[in-house]
Amino acid sequence: MRHLWQQNLKSILLSCFSHLVAEMATAGKVIKCKAAVAWEFSKPLVIEEVEVAPPQANEVRIKIVATSLCHSDLYFLYESLDKLLFPTVFGHEAAGIVESVGPGVTEFQPGDKVVPLFLPQCGECRFCKSPKTNRCEVAMKRRGQKSTEHCRLTCNGQKLQQFIETGTFSEYIVMNQMAVAKIDSAAPLDKVCLLGCGVCTGYGAAVNTAKVEPGSTCAVFGLGAVGLAAVMGCEAAGAKRIIAIDINPDKFEKAKVFGATDFVNPKDHNKPISQVLMEMTGGGVDYSLECIGNVECMRSALESCVPGWGVSVIVGWTDLHDVATRPINLMLGRTWTGCLFGGFKGKDGIPRMVKAYLDKKVKLDEFITHNMTLDQVNDAIELLKKGKSIRTVMRFSPQ
Amino acid sequence: MRHLWQQNLKSILLSCFSHLVAEMATAGKVIKCKAAVAWEFSKPLVIEEVEVAPPQANEVRIKIVATSLCHSDLYFLYESLDKLLFPTVFGHEAAGIVESVGPGVTEFQPGDKVVPLFLPQCGECRFCKSPKTNRCEVAMKRRGQKSTEHCRLTCNGQKLQQFIETGTFSEYIVMNQMAVAKIDSAAPLDKVCLLGCGVCTGYGAAVNTAKVEPGSTCAVFGLGAVGLAAVMGCEAAGAKRIIAIDINPDKFEKAKVFGATDFVNPKDHNKPISQVLMEMTGGGVDYSLECIGNVECMRSALESCVPGWGVSVIVGWTDLHDVATRPINLMLGRTWTGCLFGGFKGKDGIPRMVKAYLDKKVKLDEFITHNMTLDQVNDAIELLKKGKSIRTVMRFSPQ
Ligand SMILES: NC(=O)c1ccc[n+]([C@@H]2O[C@H](COP(=O)([O-])OP(=O)(O)OC[C@H]3O[C@@H](n4cnc5c(N)ncnc54)[C@H](O)[C@@H]3O)[C@@H](O)[C@H]2O)c1
Ligand SMILES: NC(=O)c1ccc[n+]([C@@H]2O[C@H](COP(=O)([O-])OP(=O)(O)OC[C@H]3O[C@@H](n4cnc5c(N)ncnc54)[C@H](O)[C@@H]3O)[C@@H](O)[C@H]2O)c1
Ligand SMILES: [Zn+2]
Ligand SMILES: [Zn+2]
Ligand SMILES: [Zn+2]
Ligand SMILES: [Zn+2]
Repeated sequence: MRHLWQQNLKSILLSCFSHLVAEMATAGKVIKCKAAVAWEFSKPLVIEEVEVAPPQANEVRIKIVATSLCHSDLYFLYESLDKLLFPTVFGHEAAGIVESVGPGVTEFQPGDKVVPLFLPQCGECRFCKSPKTNRCEVAMKRRGQKSTEHCRLTCNGQKLQQFIETGTFSEYIVMNQMAVAKIDSAAPLDKVCLLGCGVCTGYGAAVNTAKVEPGSTCAVFGLGAVGLAAVMGCEAAGAKRIIAIDINPDKFEKAKVFGATDFVNPKDHNKPISQVLMEMTGGGVDYSLECIGNVECMRSALESCVPGWGVSVIVGWTDLHDVATRPINLMLGRTWTGCLFGGFKGKDGIPRMVKAYLDKKVKLDEFITHNMTLDQVNDAIELLKKGKSIRTVMRFSPQ
Repeated sequence: MRHLWQQNLKSILLSCFSHLVAEMATAGKVIKCKAAVAWEFSKPLVIEEVEVAPPQANEVRIKIVATSLCHSDLYFLYESLDKLLFPTVFGHEAAGIVESVGPGVTEFQPGDKVVPLFLPQCGECRFCKSPKTNRCEVAMKRRGQKSTEHCRLTCNGQKLQQFIETGTFSEYIVMNQMAVAKIDSAAPLDKVCLLGCGVCTGYGAAVNTAKVEPGSTCAVFGLGAVGLAAVMGCEAAGAKRIIAIDINPDKFEKAKVFGATDFVNPKDHNKPISQVLMEMTGGGVDYSLECIGNVECMRSALESCVPGWGVSVIVGWTDLHDVATRPINLMLGRTWTGCLFGGFKGKDGIPRMVKAYLDKKVKLDEFITHNMTLDQVNDAIELLKKGKSIRTVMRFSPQ
């Protein structure tokens, strides 16, 4: 009788806390799981079994539930001159669940829903304490070092780098707790993963960095997820006119969904696009956001701004060339700036954006054009390269 | 008896209003006077007798009492590619007295002390109405046209251009009333002439454009009058550390007078000056101001700023080359901007700065290293070229 009762209790507990039990089963141990490994520059990723070390002091091990692909992954896989990156696990736009935590971690516990941050927020440095920036000094120092010291992934005994200290194309990853944001337990992870990079980046560039004012005229260059999120940010800030620019006209329909009012394909014009915008707006736009990663487009975006007060924000990423303009274009009172992750401090900003999504104040579903599993990551890459997707969300196991 | 009384009255009136009578004597007539004419690019100026037409509708004819020489005059005389400028009368930093006014002028009357504005303020356009800028649209449109239509100076029947619509190296000039600032009648013209360009330019760049905050660290590149005024502006705004940079160490003593706390001669270092400043400040300055007119220095000034919130203002003038940087330098949250005339709206700003000088809140005398008459303008040019003067103030007649 007593035995039966015990058996029952065990099965009740198991069904209630199966999740927790599963976690406890792996806590403190190396986890073997699937990851997409980039062994070489410009080569397809390879799905491998990797080992993920247990979290050390102040670290959190996260089970990634959904990850999407951002153009920055493509940039470092195909374009960057930084060949020291390989072998690496790409992916930095994701959401997951805390599997276990290392010593000293009090902010997180197993089961918490989280988004990994490629820009940490230590909360202690003079940058974290300033409302002016989301740059964290601790992180910058670490990144400068370029080592695998903080990497917790190995494949066949070889250390793998975690791309910009995330590497979410692995089913499990280990992150320092200062680079993890806890989010609402009601958040659908296969949607809010987009807040890990692209959507916050574009939205914040408009709202936090450009500080778009109501009634203004904006131009968004490039209509991938980052640019579309910038369009959404301009609209949320009350812009009355949002000019969406892309050489791929397939993007215009989606841009309309996010609030764009005018559409310009540079290929339809045989004069500089800054001149086209100057003429369309009677003197230039109030704000422009470059969401492509092309120094010529960055220049056009600046030069499309109205002299006197126009603000141009560089969002697209490239490190191959200088960006340039004639000094007079700045002296006339234009402002050139840029941001990483839309100026959001991750731990503060992501939970707020998750809430905005749950409250239907921010769109996420509309960015997702494809759903796949990680095995199809090379297909996802092809789609993004060819301009056929906005965001592909990948799960680790089919639903 | 009556005749004697009349004679007396006439002499009393003459002595009281001699000034006015003199004006009335010239009003409506062409004035012949002295001017320094630049007949050709890169050649010494020539003192000539010129004819100054009477003011037309909305115009004011000004007797220039004192004019100084600014590096921008040198730039267009020796460096610019714009050879269409000649023959021209240089000079744009001056103060004088209204001699006569054309139809429709209500704001000025003969005898008013004034400063001519190379940046007009029409008061009507959307830029004049915005607090964000001192760019006046009317002016920009006119300048675009590049004609002698608005020039009122001739020499031996040949029309002369007035440099940036001022041309204060002429004893009389005609200006549109939107390009004239009325100032306090107590103002010493041989001092406040400096407010016509250099001092307002540097001071305003710090106070209006960079918006230097109390307790901040600033770097000023170039210690001519513009740079020294920027130092003064940084100090007025409460900067706690002001790093003065020049390749001519003779300038450091003066910079101290205006509030500089640290002094850097790039020639003393064999690494990039941005790196020197980064190290001196533990991560970069909060504000930098380029007051040289050299695109490499503009780049250094930007790259000397602390990532996250550093603001770099381009003040020095050059139009020969692009200014450039790696996009990451902006993406890390630096801001690059610039200004003309320190962001001051001339009609509002100059009287305020004159008052600040009379109230001893702003220094002017300390900028003046030489006093001359216009005949010595080529000497003044040599001094400035050789870095041996800060400002030379020239009068038209010896005192
Ligand atoms: N600053 C950051 O923190 C940050 C974060 C994420 C992404 N990024 C960068 O933002 C950029 C956009 O990312 P994404 O994921 O939206 O990329 P994406 O590839 O989905 O979108 C880029 C868009 O730009 C368009 N485009 C390309 N060349 C163009 C041109 N010459 N003129 C006009 N349009 C052009 C493409 O057609 C495409 O629609 C990338 O450079 C990425 O690296 C920066
Ligand atoms: N933006 C505007 O509205 C405006 C108005 C007035 C003047 N300006 C420009 O401001 C600049 C300064 O004018 P100014 O009258 O003070 O000139 P200036 O010639 O008196 O001073 C320039 C200073 O820069 C220093 N310098 C030159 N090369 C340098 C280098 N490589 N590194 C460090 N220092 C260097 C010189 O030694 C000199 O002290 C000029 O380019 C001028 O055209 C702009
Ligand atoms: Zn920090
Ligand atoms: Zn990204
Ligand atoms: Zn105006
Ligand atoms: Zn000047």
